[in-house]
Amino acid sequence: MTTRLRVAIIGTGFMGRMHSHAWRTAPRFFDLSRAPEAVLLVGSDADRTAAAAAEFGIPESSADWRSAIARDDIDIVDICTPGHTHAEIALAALAAGKHVLCEKPLANDVADADRMADAAAAAAEQGVVSMCGFSYRRTPALALAKKLIDDGRLGQIRHVRAQYLQDWLTSPEAPFTWRLDRERAGSGTLGDIGAHSIDTAQWLTGSAITGVSATLRTFVESRPRLNEHVGLGGNADADAPREQVTVDDAVAFTASFADGALGVFEATRMAAGHRNANRIEVNGELGSVAFDFSFMNELQFHDARLPSDEQGFRRIDVTEPEHPYAGAWWPAGHGLGYEHLFTHQTVDFVRAITDGVAARPDFAEATRVQRVLAAVEASAASDSRYTAVEGARR
Amino acid sequence: MTTRLRVAIIGTGFMGRMHSHAWRTAPRFFDLSRAPEAVLLVGSDADRTAAAAAEFGIPESSADWRSAIARDDIDIVDICTPGHTHAEIALAALAAGKHVLCEKPLANDVADADRMADAAAAAAEQGVVSMCGFSYRRTPALALAKKLIDDGRLGQIRHVRAQYLQDWLTSPEAPFTWRLDRERAGSGTLGDIGAHSIDTAQWLTGSAITGVSATLRTFVESRPRLNEHVGLGGNADADAPREQVTVDDAVAFTASFADGALGVFEATRMAAGHRNANRIEVNGELGSVAFDFSFMNELQFHDARLPSDEQGFRRIDVTEPEHPYAGAWWPAGHGLGYEHLFTHQTVDFVRAITDGVAARPDFAEATRVQRVLAAVEASAASDSRYTAVEGARR
Amino acid sequence: MTTRLRVAIIGTGFMGRMHSHAWRTAPRFFDLSRAPEAVLLVGSDADRTAAAAAEFGIPESSADWRSAIARDDIDIVDICTPGHTHAEIALAALAAGKHVLCEKPLANDVADADRMADAAAAAAEQGVVSMCGFSYRRTPALALAKKLIDDGRLGQIRHVRAQYLQDWLTSPEAPFTWRLDRERAGSGTLGDIGAHSIDTAQWLTGSAITGVSATLRTFVESRPRLNEHVGLGGNADADAPREQVTVDDAVAFTASFADGALGVFEATRMAAGHRNANRIEVNGELGSVAFDFSFMNELQFHDARLPSDEQGFRRIDVTEPEHPYAGAWWPAGHGLGYEHLFTHQTVDFVRAITDGVAARPDFAEATRVQRVLAAVEASAASDSRYTAVEGARR
Amino acid sequence: MTTRLRVAIIGTGFMGRMHSHAWRTAPRFFDLSRAPEAVLLVGSDADRTAAAAAEFGIPESSADWRSAIARDDIDIVDICTPGHTHAEIALAALAAGKHVLCEKPLANDVADADRMADAAAAAAEQGVVSMCGFSYRRTPALALAKKLIDDGRLGQIRHVRAQYLQDWLTSPEAPFTWRLDRERAGSGTLGDIGAHSIDTAQWLTGSAITGVSATLRTFVESRPRLNEHVGLGGNADADAPREQVTVDDAVAFTASFADGALGVFEATRMAAGHRNANRIEVNGELGSVAFDFSFMNELQFHDARLPSDEQGFRRIDVTEPEHPYAGAWWPAGHGLGYEHLFTHQTVDFVRAITDGVAARPDFAEATRVQRVLAAVEASAASDSRYTAVEGARR
Repeated sequence: MTTRLRVAIIGTGFMGRMHSHAWRTAPRFFDLSRAPEAVLLVGSDADRTAAAAAEFGIPESSADWRSAIARDDIDIVDICTPGHTHAEIALAALAAGKHVLCEKPLANDVADADRMADAAAAAAEQGVVSMCGFSYRRTPALALAKKLIDDGRLGQIRHVRAQYLQDWLTSPEAPFTWRLDRERAGSGTLGDIGAHSIDTAQWLTGSAITGVSATLRTFVESRPRLNEHVGLGGNADADAPREQVTVDDAVAFTASFADGALGVFEATRMAAGHRNANRIEVNGELGSVAFDFSFMNELQFHDARLPSDEQGFRRIDVTEPEHPYAGAWWPAGHGLGYEHLFTHQTVDFVRAITDGVAARPDFAEATRVQRVLAAVEASAASDSRYTAVEGARR
Repeated sequence: MTTRLRVAIIGTGFMGRMHSHAWRTAPRFFDLSRAPEAVLLVGSDADRTAAAAAEFGIPESSADWRSAIARDDIDIVDICTPGHTHAEIALAALAAGKHVLCEKPLANDVADADRMADAAAAAAEQGVVSMCGFSYRRTPALALAKKLIDDGRLGQIRHVRAQYLQDWLTSPEAPFTWRLDRERAGSGTLGDIGAHSIDTAQWLTGSAITGVSATLRTFVESRPRLNEHVGLGGNADADAPREQVTVDDAVAFTASFADGALGVFEATRMAAGHRNANRIEVNGELGSVAFDFSFMNELQFHDARLPSDEQGFRRIDVTEPEHPYAGAWWPAGHGLGYEHLFTHQTVDFVRAITDGVAARPDFAEATRVQRVLAAVEASAASDSRYTAVEGARR
Repeated sequence: MTTRLRVAIIGTGFMGRMHSHAWRTAPRFFDLSRAPEAVLLVGSDADRTAAAAAEFGIPESSADWRSAIARDDIDIVDICTPGHTHAEIALAALAAGKHVLCEKPLANDVADADRMADAAAAAAEQGVVSMCGFSYRRTPALALAKKLIDDGRLGQIRHVRAQYLQDWLTSPEAPFTWRLDRERAGSGTLGDIGAHSIDTAQWLTGSAITGVSATLRTFVESRPRLNEHVGLGGNADADAPREQVTVDDAVAFTASFADGALGVFEATRMAAGHRNANRIEVNGELGSVAFDFSFMNELQFHDARLPSDEQGFRRIDVTEPEHPYAGAWWPAGHGLGYEHLFTHQTVDFVRAITDGVAARPDFAEATRVQRVLAAVEASAASDSRYTAVEGARR
Repeated sequence: MTTRLRVAIIGTGFMGRMHSHAWRTAPRFFDLSRAPEAVLLVGSDADRTAAAAAEFGIPESSADWRSAIARDDIDIVDICTPGHTHAEIALAALAAGKHVLCEKPLANDVADADRMADAAAAAAEQGVVSMCGFSYRRTPALALAKKLIDDGRLGQIRHVRAQYLQDWLTSPEAPFTWRLDRERAGSGTLGDIGAHSIDTAQWLTGSAITGVSATLRTFVESRPRLNEHVGLGGNADADAPREQVTVDDAVAFTASFADGALGVFEATRMAAGHRNANRIEVNGELGSVAFDFSFMNELQFHDARLPSDEQGFRRIDVTEPEHPYAGAWWPAGHGLGYEHLFTHQTVDFVRAITDGVAARPDFAEATRVQRVLAAVEASAASDSRYTAVEGARR
């Protein structure tokens, strides 16, 4: 029997919790030649990290990520921290010969992303695997969309239409978080959720975004500081001290794709009524696909080659055994949830390590998203003028 | 009993037919102090116009619009011709003291639109009424949305998201029509359907678009000439002579509104699977409304002031007697169709004449759409750079 | 040129108004060899009928249906009165050699229906056409469903699932109307809307209902009398005198079809939130169709012969030129409304007269619905025991 | 620190796998005073059970359920076997003082169910907890529906409308399974999925079904025997030996509730296109709720007390921290899947043991479903005559 893959998770927040569930669950539903196991949780505060490890079911904890990475018995470093820390941790982990799974966006700027990609490329020659966590690629419905597009079912692509709509910042009294601080988060809505749309669009179409014309907005300039008595969902006291919001609340941009398609992207945290509507639609000469994460087990597919009086968007329940990832779970019609994307991501990452399948997106591919993010910010800073994405190619 | 309002319809195409139905139907369902009656149909070809008049149930026909306008017994001139003819006909009709209903967009350029607005303003002093046919304003669901916004139910507006998706040009072999000729149509998708989105957005929010950053695309450069054996829906022969497409197939732009909202607009005739999805959504600090013409009897309304665990988009069946226009028709739940917008428009226009209610949009208001169209074209011609809308104000 | 078909409409209520619109509209959109024209409106009260005629645009009015039928210049008698009057009027009209269009249900009991069918059969030998107004058959989406089923696309039918959900009687204070009086209405929800479901189900499947097991419910036993100041939608005064409700508020029954399918039917006027949800779904061995009148321009079609990973209900926008009735109207995607069903019905009726096409459903076919209604009442009266439909055959 | 609750899972199939995931996951997301742990998996074949245990991550396995139950170190017996074995195992486990979680339906007949309920009642006096696995009660959306109904938001209930539509038996060549064998399964669609609808309906309304009028159908009388090369989703060879289907393919019944509501129930495995559409709608005098498991994170709620022009079904995304169960998981809008119902069930069961909260449904409550199933079968066997549910009371 082969040995397990031992994982250190860096980060104890939402994503740390999510990844711990994925590492635990993946080997129970997927046939993996080496089962992964989260053995160490790393955070910034020793006591809180120990408590989180107990909660997540991880045997060991640490407040020192450097020593964690130095341990011989760790195979995988799983980075779930805010973006400004990614580069330093990833570079150290790669240098130590660890496989690295890094949450998205890869970094807070292109320079860091490039350094990470270079280090990953060098490490790859030693068999070290790196991957960036654009988890939505692991949605069965989007994986089916990818297959349909790759099979030519849409023909020449004309339109990509992506909206990522959230509403947790709708109220001006919704409290401040680190995600609203440019220093730590890099950008706001753009990097947090717009990045998902960009990655999904380029991956689905197999075509790079070559230029953008963009606008960024910050509707609420300051927000009350969150204290311990107020959860993320609630409003803080009216007289709480306020923090400056230094990132965008919303972003919108049009995009040109290498294959000629026209993209329209919008992301916001102020679309009242949309908790997490991650939507993308692709229209081609022969058909269309449409997806909304609010209905994550469905793909809408329109086949324009059917007889005209029988055409229409078809709501495919993507839970058949034949569908991507779905066969490992429950009988058809018994849908999956958000967390399954991370379990699937874990499976793909482990198989990249054990079976030599390419890890996608690797750090190089993830830098393409980073370059689009940079072009969006540059365009927004220059009157929305069309701005080429540096280094973009098909 | 008062005399009827006698109408000359100029134009025998899709819109001429539609308006003739509206003039006939309006007095049967709405209480009008002077019933309108279409008495004259004007076209370019005498025989074909006579045949159309017989089909539409209009007693007289003519191939000479100038003499039609000159007739003393005509009260209303209803312009349903392509955009490049609007100004000349409208100016003549206004000069002759006729009330003028003019199809959208008002003109093919701002200069013509301004001349029309000036003439209409002068004629208004003589009691002459002018109105531009942005018919979607007469959708009960959108009229309800307007009421909710005017009542402050959405609070400060943050986002306007408008898509007008058609697919009749998806195939490169779909035949050429006058709508693809810049000379006659002014622009393509932009002026034909994008104009609807612009008018709806400014009307709903009560806020002007002050600037845009835009992209235009023509995906298919030439199309086979339509011959008589091929309908609009079908494909022409492969070896038919081809006409140059001189307008846009698709347009996308971001927009700034006077009240600070961010707009994202997209219009296309190549969104495979969408026959006529005219969609608009408005997100405010206190709620949202969303509309899709594919479900024209519905308005989606989200009230963010409800308790958090009871919130959600509410699908309002806008067919109650209390709803705009709806009470004149059938019992609740027995929905209306596309043509009803035109009947409602007729009613509003007649009442503007007989009751002194303001005609909305009058020509001055319609020029605001024209100015946005011009700004979109200017921005698209200069690398999508943000371009102020000339004369835009709240 | 042939002469017009001159129509007398009997009935000035909701259906009288609706039919007058249909007679006026049909010849404007459909090519009819003899155009119909409503020339006479007949009601019970002379003054109110005259006022209704003026409103509906009908030149003459009368309060004497017998003399109307006796007139030589009337070709068609169009019966839009409550059910208890149908037989007498129809028999007289058929005897006078008039073509008869009669609103549904055909009669208030089987005996009357049989007499009408016998008279219609006799008159048919003289070229007299009769038809019963099951208008939902004229929905383009349902006509497409019928075509798909007739073409074998669903294979052997297993399930018919029909719900007709309204909510205008939800409040116990909703006022009394003639529709709640057994004497005039025959039955309540059963005959008013359940009858539509029964006709649609038998027509779509081409298979007769052979037996039923049924339950009827009257949830609210009495309701305030409607006075002139209170519309149908509102609630009457709490102290208004109350009328006894003598019909059913709701009905539910299971049904056996001649071809072996299992039917489940439900109709109610107390399904809060459903204004007029007339739904039917048919499941076969090879596929399914589903329809909801709340989305009347759509048909949902599932083709079980597609590859398993591409299957799903397809939302067909039934507005293409190729679709039933749709080509006469507007470009694809510009949907129709409730009233169009009646215009289509008029067209089919006129063509039955002029072109010798069979009128469907004729009175004989309409009696099959009547027999199911009778079986439903009989079963409900005997502990829901399975009750064969008298005379039902495939 | 308190000791763990040690669980023996009996059954290695779909449900055994599901429960093992739930036991593993529950303590990671919910605060439980004693964490459960699945320590033993019991099956009928030693080798296959050992393999399943390894796959499920359970340390021990056994092919002898009696000795498993006899072990002192087992606190909970979790019964995931076919229905005909429930009574024997449960009675033994209760006798041994184990807490028992038993999959639904509780038994294959009322006599067994009663024996189980009696034993559970006796054991309860010793602090032994029993619960039946009607997992859909743990759907956050249905739990919200329950809360709204309990809070009086629907007022007097008039209608319950439940459909459970699957399609895995649509093809006559879909292979035979134990679920089609009366001996092991008790009944077919009725007990497998109809039972869910019955439990949900009685639980939501808080009102018992007092009588039914029912029909059962077996459309396909025999099916090919499944061999190892053919999965459940596929079709077997045409010449495979065939097994007799001894249960129902579909069931439909109307029902009376103690509080006067009218129920309409339908369940089938032949509704082509519906993979697992577990739907229920409840209409009351003041509002309605509607649910479809195909959209499991949503509840549709209609509040008839809102102003008439603002009413409509509201799509509540039941993922807010305030919603039942949802706060333990991800941020709002990041939906759950099917398996979460079982994790929630585990949590509720554990808390019943540790905190003295009532376990719902306990065996007594589950027998009410069993009695309805029996009444359905009795009615179907006697011409669908209305049949009282034995012992039903509010």
